[in-house]
Amino acid sequence: MVEESESIRQKVAHYLDDFDSSISIIINLILVGLIFLSSAIFVIETYPITTSFVSQLQTIDKVIIWIFTIEYLIRFWCADSKLKFIFSSYSFIDILAILPLFIGLIDIRYIRILRWFRVLRLIRLIKLQTSLLKIQSEDTIILVRIFLLLFCLIFIYAGAIYQIEHKTNPQVFKDFFDALYFSVVTMTTVGFGDIIPLSKEGKILTVIMIFSGVIFIPWQISILTQKIFQITQQNDKVCSYCGLKSHDRDANFCKICSTKL
Amino acid sequence: MVEESESIRQKVAHYLDDFDSSISIIINLILVGLIFLSSAIFVIETYPITTSFVSQLQTIDKVIIWIFTIEYLIRFWCADSKLKFIFSSYSFIDILAILPLFIGLIDIRYIRILRWFRVLRLIRLIKLQTSLLKIQSEDTIILVRIFLLLFCLIFIYAGAIYQIEHKTNPQVFKDFFDALYFSVVTMTTVGFGDIIPLSKEGKILTVIMIFSGVIFIPWQISILTQKIFQITQQNDKVCSYCGLKSHDRDANFCKICSTKL
Amino acid sequence: MVEESESIRQKVAHYLDDFDSSISIIINLILVGLIFLSSAIFVIETYPITTSFVSQLQTIDKVIIWIFTIEYLIRFWCADSKLKFIFSSYSFIDILAILPLFIGLIDIRYIRILRWFRVLRLIRLIKLQTSLLKIQSEDTIILVRIFLLLFCLIFIYAGAIYQIEHKTNPQVFKDFFDALYFSVVTMTTVGFGDIIPLSKEGKILTVIMIFSGVIFIPWQISILTQKIFQITQQNDKVCSYCGLKSHDRDANFCKICSTKL
Amino acid sequence: MVEESESIRQKVAHYLDDFDSSISIIINLILVGLIFLSSAIFVIETYPITTSFVSQLQTIDKVIIWIFTIEYLIRFWCADSKLKFIFSSYSFIDILAILPLFIGLIDIRYIRILRWFRVLRLIRLIKLQTSLLKIQSEDTIILVRIFLLLFCLIFIYAGAIYQIEHKTNPQVFKDFFDALYFSVVTMTTVGFGDIIPLSKEGKILTVIMIFSGVIFIPWQISILTQKIFQITQQNDKVCSYCGLKSHDRDANFCKICSTKL
Repeated sequence: MVEESESIRQKVAHYLDDFDSSISIIINLILVGLIFLSSAIFVIETYPITTSFVSQLQTIDKVIIWIFTIEYLIRFWCADSKLKFIFSSYSFIDILAILPLFIGLIDIRYIRILRWFRVLRLIRLIKLQTSLLKIQSEDTIILVRIFLLLFCLIFIYAGAIYQIEHKTNPQVFKDFFDALYFSVVTMTTVGFGDIIPLSKEGKILTVIMIFSGVIFIPWQISILTQKIFQITQQNDKVCSYCGLKSHDRDANFCKICSTKL
Repeated sequence: MVEESESIRQKVAHYLDDFDSSISIIINLILVGLIFLSSAIFVIETYPITTSFVSQLQTIDKVIIWIFTIEYLIRFWCADSKLKFIFSSYSFIDILAILPLFIGLIDIRYIRILRWFRVLRLIRLIKLQTSLLKIQSEDTIILVRIFLLLFCLIFIYAGAIYQIEHKTNPQVFKDFFDALYFSVVTMTTVGFGDIIPLSKEGKILTVIMIFSGVIFIPWQISILTQKIFQITQQNDKVCSYCGLKSHDRDANFCKICSTKL
Repeated sequence: MVEESESIRQKVAHYLDDFDSSISIIINLILVGLIFLSSAIFVIETYPITTSFVSQLQTIDKVIIWIFTIEYLIRFWCADSKLKFIFSSYSFIDILAILPLFIGLIDIRYIRILRWFRVLRLIRLIKLQTSLLKIQSEDTIILVRIFLLLFCLIFIYAGAIYQIEHKTNPQVFKDFFDALYFSVVTMTTVGFGDIIPLSKEGKILTVIMIFSGVIFIPWQISILTQKIFQITQQNDKVCSYCGLKSHDRDANFCKICSTKL
Repeated sequence: MVEESESIRQKVAHYLDDFDSSISIIINLILVGLIFLSSAIFVIETYPITTSFVSQLQTIDKVIIWIFTIEYLIRFWCADSKLKFIFSSYSFIDILAILPLFIGLIDIRYIRILRWFRVLRLIRLIKLQTSLLKIQSEDTIILVRIFLLLFCLIFIYAGAIYQIEHKTNPQVFKDFFDALYFSVVTMTTVGFGDIIPLSKEGKILTVIMIFSGVIFIPWQISILTQKIFQITQQNDKVCSYCGLKSHDRDANFCKICSTKL
């Protein structure tokens, strides 16, 4: 009986974390779709829409958060080490994503910013995509990671600055797109100055945003460039014995099997 | 008969792709000249000129597109693998360059932006220039490629932003030069804020423009610097005992095994 | 008698410079706390507060400067080589930090900018923190150093620009936060243009600020990236035949001489 | 007779190019002083001063250009290969520096921009300074070169933009300092937008300025970082036989004399 339950637990864990069966791929694609849907609802709510449509969107949103809550509980149940799971970075992001539901019962307006962290769950996409597309090249994975992280960063900051500035500055931060445009212009240090935060909280967030952009973008470009450079340093001699393809330019012998190149 | 046709096909392919005979150089220089002429016509049309001059320019432009269409068909005929040719990046650029002619019959105003991609054909210049000037140094080729790509990028974005913003914002985006100035100021992240897009489409294009600039410029500069640094470091002495190839310029003995170099 | 005094001198020097006993850690944490308190007083004074509160803050500030003066004299007494101590960079920062007290007796308003250099003493924190947290990794130390230096730079420039611009430009540079926001936006080359220096001195300081930011930030990021890249690459196998030390992680044989590693 | 003249020619060439005797150092310091004086005169002329002072400055300026002309002729006479001298980059800069005198007889106002290139002669300072201060370290030379080049670039662009914009935009580009402030803010991509060129020529110069800054600054910082990084890669083992101090980290033997480290 215990063994059977253990076997079910392992099967479920396998469906959630590995991507080698069609069931696990479908489950993960559905979860990714829900993240997108949830983010899209937030964006749509920033545009002028009818009250009935707003209430419909909020209903869908609540259902999604409940699904995420159930997913979190299943993941908790599946984890071999409960403590390790709770303090993992993915678990932290999940908690941030489902937190608004429960805090929202008390005060939904202010804490709503946290909902944006749900987008960070998209990082899990990389793992999925790697297995789906059978990408071997390290370059492509790095590039995909950079773009995904950058997209998440900009999206979260855009949502946060919209929440903060829309109340006091509704003419300039009209809808989500204005906030997104401001985030991109600020994080890339262009800084036109046509859209500007006025509140103190908005300015503090802008300072955090600038540092994220200034440190993140050149850092990632630098890593990518060095990776590409390193690859161009290797030559294309193929080892005749073991078949290894990537050798340093100054290599005389295969580092794996010592065959003369 | 079939063999003769095959021989003509190979000769024509040779004239278009290789640059070792005077005929092929002349053909390619004429094609490059037509690209410049076609781009110049677009730029001139943004300035206040007489209607008769506009119609004259448009006639020349149509002739040029027809020449490009014929060139594309010849290239298609010459290609060994038709499928590989259609999905090559050069073919894609060529299609974008000649597309406006055929779509233009239906709606010329909106799709006209695509015409700017014709400038990307200038990239072929590098291959030509390399053979013309007998440049051996890898550095110079990289530098030429960076400047050409950067020029094309800025030129295309300037054309696109002019097309989008001139209608709604004619005071700020007066002519092509204003759009060019805006593109440079934006892509290099200077962002004065004196010229600003007002329409939503213009802002979206600006976001794309910023990302191109922020990723492209440091990436290329980084590659160039590393290449130059690598060349100034290298040395071609090989150790006769252990076979180490990377020795400093002033080395008399191998630093690993002390053998005389 | 002389030997006894010498022994006390060494003990005191040990308490101030090393962080291996609880007494020395407590002394240094108190000093760090005083630096923070002193900086906080400057920041608070830029906000609208009652005159009695200002005079209270100034009294605390005077006491702190006196403590720093005594600390400096003790350090001077402890130093093995008096000359080397006076011309060390830490001594120079300490002098800048306590100077306002003595010059202040003549003209306190103008020279007050120097007080900001006191923040630079925070750099000593790194040494302390390293011993407290038993950090072994070189990466973390570099990262902590970058953030601390950056924080100090921004804080000092914010203080200086506030001192210069607040008199002539009180609407724009209202309080310390405005100056901090301006410093971050300027040093990271965002440059919105909403907060702008008007006086010639403010513009000169802005130019200095820009150069600090433009040279410091990419330089430090570049060092960090290369360090991280280097660490992920390295491996400590040594070839027994030719003595080559730099082998890839997955190498089984020396790539130069084919010896088994 | 011919031999004697030849010997004088070589002596003069020695005084101008080498820095090993006190006479040659004095001559070169005087020339550097004249360059600074000439640049200072241009800057002073941009501020509101009396007409009599202006005419005095212009007299001094004319004398300086005549001295530079004579220096150029002497350098030409001293050159072993006249053709090689004329097409050297230093000769080109010298010609640009003395050109305004002769073109000035026809139209002094417009061509005056060229006078700014005289500042580029400061680059010769490096060679002089290296010999004066007996700097051995490659790092310091690179750092000095970067700052000198950057200073020259900013100074020349500031002068040029002042010449172009002051006529049409006297309120914004009041004096040389405004132009300098604009140059720094633009070339470092801060771009506040408070000082903006209005004329088409000013905008074209701004575009050139931006590209110089965007390519030059990260390029030089990158070179410097890599040099510093390379030096930190070397260890501080000293060869016991020949005394060489800089060895690669993976070196087992001295690369100069093969002694075991």
